[in-house]
Amino acid sequence: MNGRRIRLGMVGGGQGAFIGGVHRIAARLDGRFDLVAGALSSDPARAEASAQELGLARSYSDFKEMARAEAARDDGIEAVAIVTPNHMHLPAARAFLEAGIHVICDKPLTATLAEAEELARVAEASEALFILTHTYAGYPMVREARRLVAKGALGEIRVVQVEYAQDWLARDESNKQAEWRTDPARSGAGGAVGDIGSHAAHLARYVSGLAIESVAAQLTAFVPGRRVDDDTQALLRFAGGARGMLWASQVAPGHDNDLRLRVLGSEAGLEWSHADPNRLRLTRLGEPSQMLTRGGPGFEGAARVPAGHPEGYLEAFASLYSDAADAILSGAMPDSLPGLSDGLDGMRFIDACVASSQADGAWTTCQGHDR
Amino acid sequence: MNGRRIRLGMVGGGQGAFIGGVHRIAARLDGRFDLVAGALSSDPARAEASAQELGLARSYSDFKEMARAEAARDDGIEAVAIVTPNHMHLPAARAFLEAGIHVICDKPLTATLAEAEELARVAEASEALFILTHTYAGYPMVREARRLVAKGALGEIRVVQVEYAQDWLARDESNKQAEWRTDPARSGAGGAVGDIGSHAAHLARYVSGLAIESVAAQLTAFVPGRRVDDDTQALLRFAGGARGMLWASQVAPGHDNDLRLRVLGSEAGLEWSHADPNRLRLTRLGEPSQMLTRGGPGFEGAARVPAGHPEGYLEAFASLYSDAADAILSGAMPDSLPGLSDGLDGMRFIDACVASSQADGAWTTCQGHDR
Amino acid sequence: MNGRRIRLGMVGGGQGAFIGGVHRIAARLDGRFDLVAGALSSDPARAEASAQELGLARSYSDFKEMARAEAARDDGIEAVAIVTPNHMHLPAARAFLEAGIHVICDKPLTATLAEAEELARVAEASEALFILTHTYAGYPMVREARRLVAKGALGEIRVVQVEYAQDWLARDESNKQAEWRTDPARSGAGGAVGDIGSHAAHLARYVSGLAIESVAAQLTAFVPGRRVDDDTQALLRFAGGARGMLWASQVAPGHDNDLRLRVLGSEAGLEWSHADPNRLRLTRLGEPSQMLTRGGPGFEGAARVPAGHPEGYLEAFASLYSDAADAILSGAMPDSLPGLSDGLDGMRFIDACVASSQADGAWTTCQGHDR
Amino acid sequence: MNGRRIRLGMVGGGQGAFIGGVHRIAARLDGRFDLVAGALSSDPARAEASAQELGLARSYSDFKEMARAEAARDDGIEAVAIVTPNHMHLPAARAFLEAGIHVICDKPLTATLAEAEELARVAEASEALFILTHTYAGYPMVREARRLVAKGALGEIRVVQVEYAQDWLARDESNKQAEWRTDPARSGAGGAVGDIGSHAAHLARYVSGLAIESVAAQLTAFVPGRRVDDDTQALLRFAGGARGMLWASQVAPGHDNDLRLRVLGSEAGLEWSHADPNRLRLTRLGEPSQMLTRGGPGFEGAARVPAGHPEGYLEAFASLYSDAADAILSGAMPDSLPGLSDGLDGMRFIDACVASSQADGAWTTCQGHDR
Repeated sequence: MNGRRIRLGMVGGGQGAFIGGVHRIAARLDGRFDLVAGALSSDPARAEASAQELGLARSYSDFKEMARAEAARDDGIEAVAIVTPNHMHLPAARAFLEAGIHVICDKPLTATLAEAEELARVAEASEALFILTHTYAGYPMVREARRLVAKGALGEIRVVQVEYAQDWLARDESNKQAEWRTDPARSGAGGAVGDIGSHAAHLARYVSGLAIESVAAQLTAFVPGRRVDDDTQALLRFAGGARGMLWASQVAPGHDNDLRLRVLGSEAGLEWSHADPNRLRLTRLGEPSQMLTRGGPGFEGAARVPAGHPEGYLEAFASLYSDAADAILSGAMPDSLPGLSDGLDGMRFIDACVASSQADGAWTTCQGHDR
Repeated sequence: MNGRRIRLGMVGGGQGAFIGGVHRIAARLDGRFDLVAGALSSDPARAEASAQELGLARSYSDFKEMARAEAARDDGIEAVAIVTPNHMHLPAARAFLEAGIHVICDKPLTATLAEAEELARVAEASEALFILTHTYAGYPMVREARRLVAKGALGEIRVVQVEYAQDWLARDESNKQAEWRTDPARSGAGGAVGDIGSHAAHLARYVSGLAIESVAAQLTAFVPGRRVDDDTQALLRFAGGARGMLWASQVAPGHDNDLRLRVLGSEAGLEWSHADPNRLRLTRLGEPSQMLTRGGPGFEGAARVPAGHPEGYLEAFASLYSDAADAILSGAMPDSLPGLSDGLDGMRFIDACVASSQADGAWTTCQGHDR
Repeated sequence: MNGRRIRLGMVGGGQGAFIGGVHRIAARLDGRFDLVAGALSSDPARAEASAQELGLARSYSDFKEMARAEAARDDGIEAVAIVTPNHMHLPAARAFLEAGIHVICDKPLTATLAEAEELARVAEASEALFILTHTYAGYPMVREARRLVAKGALGEIRVVQVEYAQDWLARDESNKQAEWRTDPARSGAGGAVGDIGSHAAHLARYVSGLAIESVAAQLTAFVPGRRVDDDTQALLRFAGGARGMLWASQVAPGHDNDLRLRVLGSEAGLEWSHADPNRLRLTRLGEPSQMLTRGGPGFEGAARVPAGHPEGYLEAFASLYSDAADAILSGAMPDSLPGLSDGLDGMRFIDACVASSQADGAWTTCQGHDR
Repeated sequence: MNGRRIRLGMVGGGQGAFIGGVHRIAARLDGRFDLVAGALSSDPARAEASAQELGLARSYSDFKEMARAEAARDDGIEAVAIVTPNHMHLPAARAFLEAGIHVICDKPLTATLAEAEELARVAEASEALFILTHTYAGYPMVREARRLVAKGALGEIRVVQVEYAQDWLARDESNKQAEWRTDPARSGAGGAVGDIGSHAAHLARYVSGLAIESVAAQLTAFVPGRRVDDDTQALLRFAGGARGMLWASQVAPGHDNDLRLRVLGSEAGLEWSHADPNRLRLTRLGEPSQMLTRGGPGFEGAARVPAGHPEGYLEAFASLYSDAADAILSGAMPDSLPGLSDGLDGMRFIDACVASSQADGAWTTCQGHDR
């Protein structure tokens, strides 16, 4: 590990936000970043108060000004974390990418597919890196699963089952988190499918190594008055012939934040659950199931603490930041780190689900899947 | 419990069969039936050898002859268990129903929907009862779940998730069980969807109390050369607006015989898994999850042994037989016992899944769902 | 399986009893016994009513008369199940053993060690078999564990951890079951240690294959007014140097009937829990944990239904009855079937625990352990 | 949260060490400490190389010199983390406490009880705080359990069951971690009982709120040639009459790092397991078991991320550091933070276990338990 700390800025994540605090812990955990500047809120007073609370060296009330000013300093930020609602991802990312500052952006990529494609053009024109924090790609046993599939341990993939179920929107909620996530103008046309379905679809692709070619979906808004789906159910067709199912729900009592993946091949199957993230069940046909553990026998990944010492959500997030540090210092994205094309895939998936549902569940291509 | 034992016959279930032995244990467990006659195989020598091994009083090589002969005896059988491959259910059931002998039939109802409708006509014309052994309806915690839903503990039902996954057909198998189940002439047009999807669909209906109005399905035969689906994935629409997903697979490594149900309502959700059948997880919004147990606090059902003494598959099956004994002695079907209309619903579900898949996943009505 | 059914009698098990009904289901499940006679209660009216309810051919109000009468009949019982409170085991067993009738007796062997030694003398003088229903020895995965240890899969056994926890006596109970179990005159000097500690100790010996040489125990009666222990905690020393711990409690909220065993050797460890009886966790040093299943890959035992179809308590009990049928028909006890020496070991264990606790936890030999 | 960062030093924790890195992540995670100085190794070259790797401002080769120099600086460290082998805890802590610098020390307190008592005198004479990192006291659900017991939710405590099982010393190991832990000169007379038994005993006391008055223990060194116990089994007597059992083993195949606690009272029981640390099972007599979750309904503690986002070992450790920051800034130890008396209790427990085992398991008082 290279000891030099990378100077980091943040857009969004002021007082009352959730994911901004997670990014800050993640950036700090492995000691590879120093958070030195921020445009933490579009409200100048709140931006300033938030910056003071965090002891930031430099606070801005406008991210465009921040991009200009930081790019001009010798000790300006090298990377910025964008943790705003979805509809601000494009303008914020554009400002920093055009200033040559690396971007670490929360998911989904943008609010709409059109914005995503615009962001892709901006990123292509920039020499700065674009990193997308699909948290679950940071879990050691998710990466172990990906390695096992890639090395052929499962044979030919036949079925992928993925679900992401929560219950925090089962009633009509009026908190800050719920508010923008259920407003199409800020979240995009997808509700649950955008907020968590995008994670589930990414996880399925990340581990299986297969593109989702098309979907047949039914999106429902169960809570009266809700303007976006709070439950998405979809059938999936993967490149190469695998078939699958995806369920994303925010109205599922008994489910706090349950992301679960099964990948089933001609020779073996594996299962991972976010509720028990340090373990991975592997079953080869004709053999007893094996429980693989983070740090245990056969584990090939990286771990901060030995087997039996649980790592969780913040460590997974921190692993993305650590990968990002490697990327920034080396100039090259490691294979394990989600980036722009993952974000585009995600937006195409959301778009296709919404379109399929509007067409009464007709099979709908995730355009561009074959890039 | 009335001490009188009911005289029982059996069609099918000779040497080498699986489910016949299960029916016999189930009939014996609570001591309410005496197996006295059988047409255990269409091969006369095997029928005779099987009957001798079981110590049956009377053995027949032809079920029609058996129906005639038994109906004519004073001490003839009062009920018959039909445990043949699916395509024989109709002719066998017809013979006994027309002879006024009660029928206890394995699922699915028949091989085709046309046969099912014919069987319905035959049954309607008979005074004998028709009982269908959807095993999982015999589990005490499944019944507890049904009670909870019926009394409104979940609020309005929104989502039903059901899956039934096995792996025993993940490779090309040539045993007796596999042989007829993958032959459309004997099993019907559905493979996995008929063999286990019918159980899953019944469980969803049985617990939720809701009819499945329509399906959008993709059926796949993953194993080369297989003539029926070995994996079925479907979206479901229930009467009243609930939405759901059903997965039935016989090519899922890591799954022995995993039937799992979640019913999620506006106020609470519940989850039951066949791998842990004596427990039922109930989560009311805003309260910690509760683990209900067979025989434990609040349990309203019947149990042979106290909480903490596991009951399993054979006990569930035996509960259907015990219900059947009640039905036969009283002449009325208890509400908890699956019968003809459940079998028809099952055949319509299978038929709709096959049709939907052939129409590239178009939503297809389970005709008759609104009876 | 030999088709001939064995004629069975029963002593105890009248209306209101628990374990008598379990024995009857167990005897019936595999169809190898016919219950034809009984002395079901010491109260003649209750004996008669119970016998009528069960449809028994012959009812007695006195077990001595029953032994005499049945021994004199050509169609008399060949075996008797003794399901009375503990203090009646010796007189009842004596009557039948002396009449040449095989005895299937519930555990623990007797109420006191002196009675147990007397019973041993009686049994030795008889040609009839003596079978002790340590239920847990009937579980397929317990037998699989025993096989694995015996074949050396664990290396040298170092540590044995066993516990049996219930909560049904956490308050002062006055039901029939509680009444005699907490009365030293009928249950013996041990409360929890006799009722369930004897099961736990047997399980530890049965799987490990090691005798318990000595114990250091503390017995406590937590519920005010209770005359026997409701919680026993003990350190164990096994023949050959293994060390262990045993906990038996009937005042443990959250535990319905939780028997759990871990056997840990120099090369591997295994774990079995009654709450999940169809699985056995095996961990070889340096390898991922494996989950062995009843009927699954590598399983060498017998099973009535395939993997994934749960068997439970009644099936385990029925397996003891099936073994008993084999024993009675062949005249030889199979190695897997608990008998008199297991019962003596159990009484010596209970006696040593009580003595150790009275001596402030001093190490106390289980006399006779070296037979 | 006060934004000011506390200046921290470290003794021990150079290259190749395990727990030093854990302390550093824990100190960093919540952003309340800056690590600025260290005496990371007693080997000067290794100390220097380790300091450079970590980017420390000031590196020392001698902790006494470090204490003197840092106490003399205006910007000297305010607190020091001591992460050496056990036998160095006393001299290191003495140096800093006498210099008025707060001490955050790894467990167990010292290598011997005599050292512990000397350290107590030193600490009493200092105005600096002494904090002991019993990690498991940092888990949110452990604290929730403690709260539930303290508010009487369990009634009168009857039984405490605690175990801490690992398998990493099941074979003769020669790595750095194993080496000093199995050397009585550096670890103290206890092996497993000191290294992990001390954690288990602390957890039992921390949650139950009860002192361990006396123990009856058997310590065993199973691996040939091992100089300290690798397995400790003990019966416990708590103040007030509760009874318990403690097992600490480092030779238990199938156990990575399994700390498990059950506290059982007259009204309810609770269970916590380190393998699933975000949940706590609570069972009130006569009610279904409840699964309490970190951040879920009824949770009263602090959490960095919502329910369903797993926190683990590093977060628990970080919570101790965050408590330590509160303590240092306020000058007062929060009730939840382990300190000197916990360390003394731990040493008395280890000492009593060793003495009891040497006296063939005689009950041995943990002297001083009644302070």
